[in-house]
Amino acid sequence: MSNWSHRHVLDLAAFSLADYATVLELAQRFRAMPVAGARKLPALQGRLMTSLFFEPSTRTRSSFELAAKRLSADVQSFSPSSSSLSKGESILDTARTYVAMGANVLVVRHRCAGVPQGLARDLDQAGESVAVLNAGDGLRSHPSQGLLDLFTLARHFNPELPTPEALRGKRIVIVGDVLHSRVARSNLWALTACGAQVVLCGPATLLPDAFSGFVDAPPPGLAADPVAQRGPIQVVRSLEEALPGADAVMTLRLQKERMHQHLLTSLDRYHQLYGLTHQRLALCGKPVPVLHPGPVNRGVELAGSLLDDPATSLVEEQVRNGIPIRMALLYLLAAKGASA
Amino acid sequence: MSNWSHRHVLDLAAFSLADYATVLELAQRFRAMPVAGARKLPALQGRLMTSLFFEPSTRTRSSFELAAKRLSADVQSFSPSSSSLSKGESILDTARTYVAMGANVLVVRHRCAGVPQGLARDLDQAGESVAVLNAGDGLRSHPSQGLLDLFTLARHFNPELPTPEALRGKRIVIVGDVLHSRVARSNLWALTACGAQVVLCGPATLLPDAFSGFVDAPPPGLAADPVAQRGPIQVVRSLEEALPGADAVMTLRLQKERMHQHLLTSLDRYHQLYGLTHQRLALCGKPVPVLHPGPVNRGVELAGSLLDDPATSLVEEQVRNGIPIRMALLYLLAAKGASA
Amino acid sequence: MSNWSHRHVLDLAAFSLADYATVLELAQRFRAMPVAGARKLPALQGRLMTSLFFEPSTRTRSSFELAAKRLSADVQSFSPSSSSLSKGESILDTARTYVAMGANVLVVRHRCAGVPQGLARDLDQAGESVAVLNAGDGLRSHPSQGLLDLFTLARHFNPELPTPEALRGKRIVIVGDVLHSRVARSNLWALTACGAQVVLCGPATLLPDAFSGFVDAPPPGLAADPVAQRGPIQVVRSLEEALPGADAVMTLRLQKERMHQHLLTSLDRYHQLYGLTHQRLALCGKPVPVLHPGPVNRGVELAGSLLDDPATSLVEEQVRNGIPIRMALLYLLAAKGASA
Repeated sequence: MSNWSHRHVLDLAAFSLADYATVLELAQRFRAMPVAGARKLPALQGRLMTSLFFEPSTRTRSSFELAAKRLSADVQSFSPSSSSLSKGESILDTARTYVAMGANVLVVRHRCAGVPQGLARDLDQAGESVAVLNAGDGLRSHPSQGLLDLFTLARHFNPELPTPEALRGKRIVIVGDVLHSRVARSNLWALTACGAQVVLCGPATLLPDAFSGFVDAPPPGLAADPVAQRGPIQVVRSLEEALPGADAVMTLRLQKERMHQHLLTSLDRYHQLYGLTHQRLALCGKPVPVLHPGPVNRGVELAGSLLDDPATSLVEEQVRNGIPIRMALLYLLAAKGASA
Repeated sequence: MSNWSHRHVLDLAAFSLADYATVLELAQRFRAMPVAGARKLPALQGRLMTSLFFEPSTRTRSSFELAAKRLSADVQSFSPSSSSLSKGESILDTARTYVAMGANVLVVRHRCAGVPQGLARDLDQAGESVAVLNAGDGLRSHPSQGLLDLFTLARHFNPELPTPEALRGKRIVIVGDVLHSRVARSNLWALTACGAQVVLCGPATLLPDAFSGFVDAPPPGLAADPVAQRGPIQVVRSLEEALPGADAVMTLRLQKERMHQHLLTSLDRYHQLYGLTHQRLALCGKPVPVLHPGPVNRGVELAGSLLDDPATSLVEEQVRNGIPIRMALLYLLAAKGASA
Repeated sequence: MSNWSHRHVLDLAAFSLADYATVLELAQRFRAMPVAGARKLPALQGRLMTSLFFEPSTRTRSSFELAAKRLSADVQSFSPSSSSLSKGESILDTARTYVAMGANVLVVRHRCAGVPQGLARDLDQAGESVAVLNAGDGLRSHPSQGLLDLFTLARHFNPELPTPEALRGKRIVIVGDVLHSRVARSNLWALTACGAQVVLCGPATLLPDAFSGFVDAPPPGLAADPVAQRGPIQVVRSLEEALPGADAVMTLRLQKERMHQHLLTSLDRYHQLYGLTHQRLALCGKPVPVLHPGPVNRGVELAGSLLDDPATSLVEEQVRNGIPIRMALLYLLAAKGASA
């Protein structure tokens, strides 16, 4: 971990291959540690994680809080409903209040892209030594989800040594509403960095052609891509074209309100074209795992029988891996904060 | 505790006399332990209790969470308001998400009878090793309340040795809206199992005659009653008939909206007929304790002066006993989970 | 601390000079203790703090909860939204329920003045041994805020020895909506007790002349003022008159809805007359610190540039000092409760 250089975790676009390796190695170690009957790890004793979820999310917040507690950190939770925001306070002033109370890591989710990034910049400028961990901003980025997906795949391909190398050359198919998915964007940065061959599959209304060039330009705000060579991204329109030869399939949540925006004709039609079933999966030519960030619309993105099939579905494994991944991120950020 | 065989706690109908004895013995031990200044009991260290309260309840949830913390368990709380349920996720999928995060016990409350039972069955079928603890389902069952009432009565009758035997032959009068009370139903299973003579008292609209046969058939889903011989249940219509000879009186919460359903003419009329006062209680022929599951409508089920009389009211004692009873249940379920 | 005699903390009007000294000394000790990497102080192990916030407030509640956890107390939080209050339960009955669950300190906030006081009286009468800590009642009192402001000023004037004596003879200007501020009222009791010269500044609609006599009569419910000699209070109408010679300036939050009550013509006009800027502050004749209880309306009570100037603004320091002050109060009340 001597090479870890990030004060905040805002976007996987800024991650080098070494960064991915560091996080995965730590997560693997945390995952192997016993929980039941064991004392908590004292790594973050006296440290305070504050979750600022301006957009509500029970499961992601719970996962972060459990991860923090496993490392003996204190946990504080800001609920915007009963908050000072309604009294006209700015997000920065709210954040500074929690920093003044002793927060070492702010876990921030907001419906607008760029809010955690802006907050991190403003806090740095103000001389605060707090770390910002993006838990989802608009459609842009959801780094901890991208990392837990990467960890889940790496563990699937190489259970003993789940490093970024485990992904090299693998054909990973991502199906669905890529356009409106911050999870997909984070996965694109992570998977291509590790040398996977990404195939995106969906209708043009939910997956513009331009996504094939998603990682071509240097990431926003960086002069050069921290990853020397990335795997390719291909955009295809049909599962029949996407699935043959696939090593894993990631499905994305479809927000039902997309229909009202005329991006979809019907959920039935979507499932007919892009819904995964055991039958469809057979096109891969071998048994492959299926991922989904949850919550799943049964019978839309995935047949219920597929979700319930432990031989195929990695959905619960993703949730499980969220804890050690978030422990790794909190550890890296709060240890860093300690030495600053 | 070698005889404890329940993977879940869903309904007291399934409890044997030995089960009641086990829970009461553990609760009595937990209640005797010092709290202030003491380290927490490490029994459930590294174990996770997740409360899934689809029907809100501050006090029951708080009681479970305190009980869990006293045993060093971790606590996670699912709030349906900001939840994935509104995103169309099924209860089972929600539960599995929390199981994947590491939950060992799910404490479940739902407005529909049978939800915790169905969830337990589905989770078992899915091979999950989590325990389900019913914290109230519809009008059917509220086992932890039934047990804390039993514990409170047993401690009243025999403070040194509050076993199920302490209840044998006691005349326990339950007054009020039995029809709409899951608390009453759980008490009926518990009290008759311990050999008490239960007298139900209320108007026919809130207490159908059929309740006298409530425990006659084997409990739902069981071939035979786990209790060989139960005490009798009698239905009477007036307090004047019910109270003479009573050893304790349990009152039930009256939901004021019952009037809109034409089950009541007025709250005043209800209090006149079924409201407990010191004067009414004198009919018992000796000092007897009064219980209520709370929250009380002062002046409806109970005169305020009676609620405030520490010589008579066991209402606070019930709340107090809720903690050791829930500690006992969590201990039995999470220890079981550990060995499974 | 041998002289501490308060069973509850309800209003600073009842504090003697020795009480202020006790709290400040404890707070200074708690503030000096390391947090990161350290084990928690075991002082309140097995003790339970329950927050009953009938009026929502994320930041004050968070501050109390962090303070409690630093002392190893358990924390329980009552949320009125999902509560029994909507079921018609009285505040006293709600409080007694939490006391029965084991609460040692109830931290109470309510929109009506006098609720924590009434609750404390009723609980005492009922023989409960719980302490009530007022976290804000209507416009009357907010003792922990008054104490943290006092501590912040004392530390500013004498960082090594922040005793009440540090305030003696200091000219403290309080600007703004004094009429609607429980913070201002608590500050008036605290500052005059320590011998400060208080200057109140604001328009007559928000600051009636009568405030100059605020501490003249014995505090409500007390036969005599526990403070032998208080510093003076002066009411002035313009900052030009108030600021020269000031040693510190406290600004108060302006609730924007005051305009609808015709107490203000416009926010712009308010800022023009009473808003603090670097330029205005120069009238003091020397560098002076600025305080604000938060959340700040930038550009109304304070220019944003002033709030962001660490050489002038003590706003974050106030938030920071809230933790050790609340630790001190919880320590004094829960230790007292233990011996009772």
